Amino acid sequence: MGEERRLRDLWAEARELSLGTSGCVDRLDAPPSPLRFLRDYVSANKPCLISRAATRGWPAVSLWSDDAYLRRALRGHAVSVHLTPHGRADSLVPLPSARGRGGGLCFASAAVRSMDFSEALELITATGSPSSPTVAYAQQQNDCFRAEYSALAGDVEPDVPWATEALGRLPEAVNLWIGNGRSETSFHKDHYENLYAVITGEKHFLLLPPTDVHRLYVRHYPAAHYVLDDGGELRLELEQPERQVPWCSVDPYPETAEALAEQREAFPLYFDGPKPFECTVKAGEILYLPSMWFHHVRQTPDRHGRTIAVNYWYDMQFDIKYAYFSFLQSIDYTLPPCKPSAKV
Amino acid sequence: MGEERRLRDLWAEARELSLGTSGCVDRLDAPPSPLRFLRDYVSANKPCLISRAATRGWPAVSLWSDDAYLRRALRGHAVSVHLTPHGRADSLVPLPSARGRGGGLCFASAAVRSMDFSEALELITATGSPSSPTVAYAQQQNDCFRAEYSALAGDVEPDVPWATEALGRLPEAVNLWIGNGRSETSFHKDHYENLYAVITGEKHFLLLPPTDVHRLYVRHYPAAHYVLDDGGELRLELEQPERQVPWCSVDPYPETAEALAEQREAFPLYFDGPKPFECTVKAGEILYLPSMWFHHVRQTPDRHGRTIAVNYWYDMQFDIKYAYFSFLQSIDYTLPPCKPSAKV
Repeated sequence: MGEERRLRDLWAEARELSLGTSGCVDRLDAPPSPLRFLRDYVSANKPCLISRAATRGWPAVSLWSDDAYLRRALRGHAVSVHLTPHGRADSLVPLPSARGRGGGLCFASAAVRSMDFSEALELITATGSPSSPTVAYAQQQNDCFRAEYSALAGDVEPDVPWATEALGRLPEAVNLWIGNGRSETSFHKDHYENLYAVITGEKHFLLLPPTDVHRLYVRHYPAAHYVLDDGGELRLELEQPERQVPWCSVDPYPETAEALAEQREAFPLYFDGPKPFECTVKAGEILYLPSMWFHHVRQTPDRHGRTIAVNYWYDMQFDIKYAYFSFLQSIDYTLPPCKPSAKV
Repeated sequence: MGEERRLRDLWAEARELSLGTSGCVDRLDAPPSPLRFLRDYVSANKPCLISRAATRGWPAVSLWSDDAYLRRALRGHAVSVHLTPHGRADSLVPLPSARGRGGGLCFASAAVRSMDFSEALELITATGSPSSPTVAYAQQQNDCFRAEYSALAGDVEPDVPWATEALGRLPEAVNLWIGNGRSETSFHKDHYENLYAVITGEKHFLLLPPTDVHRLYVRHYPAAHYVLDDGGELRLELEQPERQVPWCSVDPYPETAEALAEQREAFPLYFDGPKPFECTVKAGEILYLPSMWFHHVRQTPDRHGRTIAVNYWYDMQFDIKYAYFSFLQSIDYTLPPCKPSAKV
């Protein structure tokens, strides 16, 4: 049997046996018991979305859409803000030297600035406008909630109790994300079990299981990062010495019909395979995003122009599932090379 | 990277990450909590052996080595007994037509006779002698404990409570096995989570994880079964119409040095790969034998010449692990064809 046929059978079988073929994520009306969560979701490596009942009693859900509350609580606190020209950090953009010449791509990280929280909040709101030449996103995936936002610690649970009991450990990191509607996270996976709570606004996830790894065309791209110059403008610089980063090549939402046609041609396994799971997480809801699942995230802001989320990363178990994934990924299957495109 | 290299990396990685590299099975001094059992063993698809504490309070452990007790309890009950010339039912033996001519192999099932329990018990004991031309094994993998041995129901738990809670369901089947030291079960896998309790005597398991499927050389063999002729002799007959059965080709314990050399040559991935997990289950202990694991079983009888075991089959979850396995198995990797040998 041909390799492509076998891979397609795998994508289909994972859905037919366990994940579902509708492209929808299981919705639970109440937090699951630890045993059920472990049996039906973690062990099965299958996502689920828990209703607002998941955050019942968290003061954050009512307090964090109030600017005055946040400013007061975080007065004088410095926080990390990621700056990009378009809202896409950790994503593929044209190489700086090839700008405008249709050349290759690089993996671009945001410029990170530490600033007073109230300044950050204003910047996030202001840069939500499509005319703003930069987009600000307060986030830092290094346990930033506990490190930078400890003043808000009492507003959410320090962990997700049923997940902590199921997984037999406390979260390794808790991160806070404050963004506007322009921020977008490109397809990637994390080596953590992820409990993702949206506090205000909405997050829109596209999800693909690890069985679908070949559909993302993970390739190596040179690392680059944005730098703020003296005039406050962002400039993209390749890292020196050069460093290669493996990253998913697919952009599921290209901005033009022409770019979509290029993506379809370059990445047919993504576009003609089973549709990704789609899931909108609303304020107060928690998504269980299983380890090793590829996810792409966009957001809709609340009436103040912001989406705020807290996510809990729990160490994953590197068990037989990971060994299977690693074997699958080692199969170097791709259709003939092609010319990918990217948003600028 | 070559296919064999990638398979070998998979076998190694599953062991290094999760299963262990010692070839030993985790030993637990007490039954695990349902959460721990689910998290550390079922979800990880990893075996464990629970000490005698697992069957504390089961009257069977003291009662079933007493012939008089068993005869009294089962007086007048008919039970199913499997008869073979050598103790190996559901195993590969030379084709009946090719006997003595070094031809191919077939998959041979036992002759099954229903007989009074006391007759069965005598037969099992008597046929334990190496000079006996038949070997009797009381077993029937169709929930036989609950069907044929209901008179003994009060002597064991109807289920394994911590497993029932972890798996969220009652056992689908409970089987009883009464054999002598000559019975041997060839490598195979079951689509069940298996809790295997030894009551008297010992069982010796060789275990290989599902990641190692290519090492067992699963091939198709014509189905045959033993038939008792009028003189009480066993005769092997091919099924008509012919039916092909996929079965593991490897015999881990060939009887002669010559047969071993043939096995090594025919099945190098088994003999030169990581050694199988070895586990002896003693009276009162319970082995968790995860779904899809290949297992080969031999036994040491108690002082009455018998090994008695009860196993609980719980339905497995067909989740992403199964999809990965199915993909792995679809890779048709074998070294060049070879001439296998078998015990007669």
